[in-house]
Amino acid sequence: MIKVYDLAGAEEDLRFSPNCWRVKMALKHKGLTFEAIPWRFVEKDAIAFSGQKTVPVLVDGDQTIIDSWSIACYLEAAYPEHPSLFGGSVGMGTARWVKFWCEQELHSILFKIILPDLFERLHEKDKPYFRQTREARFGKTLEQIAEPTTEAVATLRKRLSPLRATLEQQPYLSGVQPSFADYLIFGALMWARSVSPIQLLEPTDSVYLWRDRLLDSFDGYARSAPGYPS
Amino acid sequence: MIKVYDLAGAEEDLRFSPNCWRVKMALKHKGLTFEAIPWRFVEKDAIAFSGQKTVPVLVDGDQTIIDSWSIACYLEAAYPEHPSLFGGSVGMGTARWVKFWCEQELHSILFKIILPDLFERLHEKDKPYFRQTREARFGKTLEQIAEPTTEAVATLRKRLSPLRATLEQQPYLSGVQPSFADYLIFGALMWARSVSPIQLLEPTDSVYLWRDRLLDSFDGYARSAPGYPS
Repeated sequence: MIKVYDLAGAEEDLRFSPNCWRVKMALKHKGLTFEAIPWRFVEKDAIAFSGQKTVPVLVDGDQTIIDSWSIACYLEAAYPEHPSLFGGSVGMGTARWVKFWCEQELHSILFKIILPDLFERLHEKDKPYFRQTREARFGKTLEQIAEPTTEAVATLRKRLSPLRATLEQQPYLSGVQPSFADYLIFGALMWARSVSPIQLLEPTDSVYLWRDRLLDSFDGYARSAPGYPS
Repeated sequence: MIKVYDLAGAEEDLRFSPNCWRVKMALKHKGLTFEAIPWRFVEKDAIAFSGQKTVPVLVDGDQTIIDSWSIACYLEAAYPEHPSLFGGSVGMGTARWVKFWCEQELHSILFKIILPDLFERLHEKDKPYFRQTREARFGKTLEQIAEPTTEAVATLRKRLSPLRATLEQQPYLSGVQPSFADYLIFGALMWARSVSPIQLLEPTDSVYLWRDRLLDSFDGYARSAPGYPS
């Protein structure tokens, strides 16, 4: 069976990594059975075989694939008869842009919103590592990186405006059916949902309604994951 | 022959509308012959038959289609054997997001950068109309809407960051070949190029190099249009 190393929090079933959520939704989309193995930041030895120090790491038979984008490309190539993750080369091309937009524009602001909650829910053994690496990356303390919720949520909602307009005209970012482009952004929202009770979206927001549809997809796979209902 | 009503400036061959550029590139992509009829803002009578007060308006035989997105969808459906503008339903879905991103994030900042140059190059008969409608829309004078170039160009370049990262990994937004998603953003840059000498991008920028490829496509169709070389 396919195995994916999946970041876990204080409790083993708390899975919050946005990049792992992309991969798990991609596996569900492909209709593949998999085991999501809990992994913590400091467990470098467990994935040393991959040459990588972070997850997701996917193992499929004798294949080891790292990086969520590469994993999606691998699954698309290795399982061509299963539902497509990209819908062809144009869909793959534009999905790459969605990936960079998501990481540069969405992850950045979400991180500043959910950081206190995220830190609280890490496994105790991960907390010093997380603090040290993130503070080194930002050149600030975790407490300085976090932004006041009201302003940051307003920034987030504004940044989602083009997606909101799109989802007022079609049910998914990818049109009538979801594809990997949807899961890229959904993964970011699952990151928040897993650790933070902060209400990011109004229930009337087309982005909220789209997230709801994806929470319900694959027999409610994502909705059944531990997290906050808002 | 297909006709498209195309916004013109002081000189009849100065065509600067971003939404018209999308349509002209789409027509070129489809390999269709067309006539781009010069039209000015105040010439409402000339397109009254369309029920629309702005261009692009496309006339193909007995069909009249308004709005650049609808025109692209029409061309895709009416000319299915010609090269695809969307590469399937996923490509069309994500292109709609590119459209909203382009209009909300890119047109907005470009307008503030190029406004003084744009106004200068309008036909004299269009200037009062343009000033009145834009000042009503923004609740400010044209002179107040325009932003200092250095800061606004820096904002533009930052906003293009996800596209830049994408184009460092693939030649077009749509992957190995351009599609309508590319023309959406290219149209915005043609708007600027047509009227303003301001250097928006460094020549080493992957977005600049991508624009260069599109300027050269279709036998240099866009490059041969009046505009600034930068």
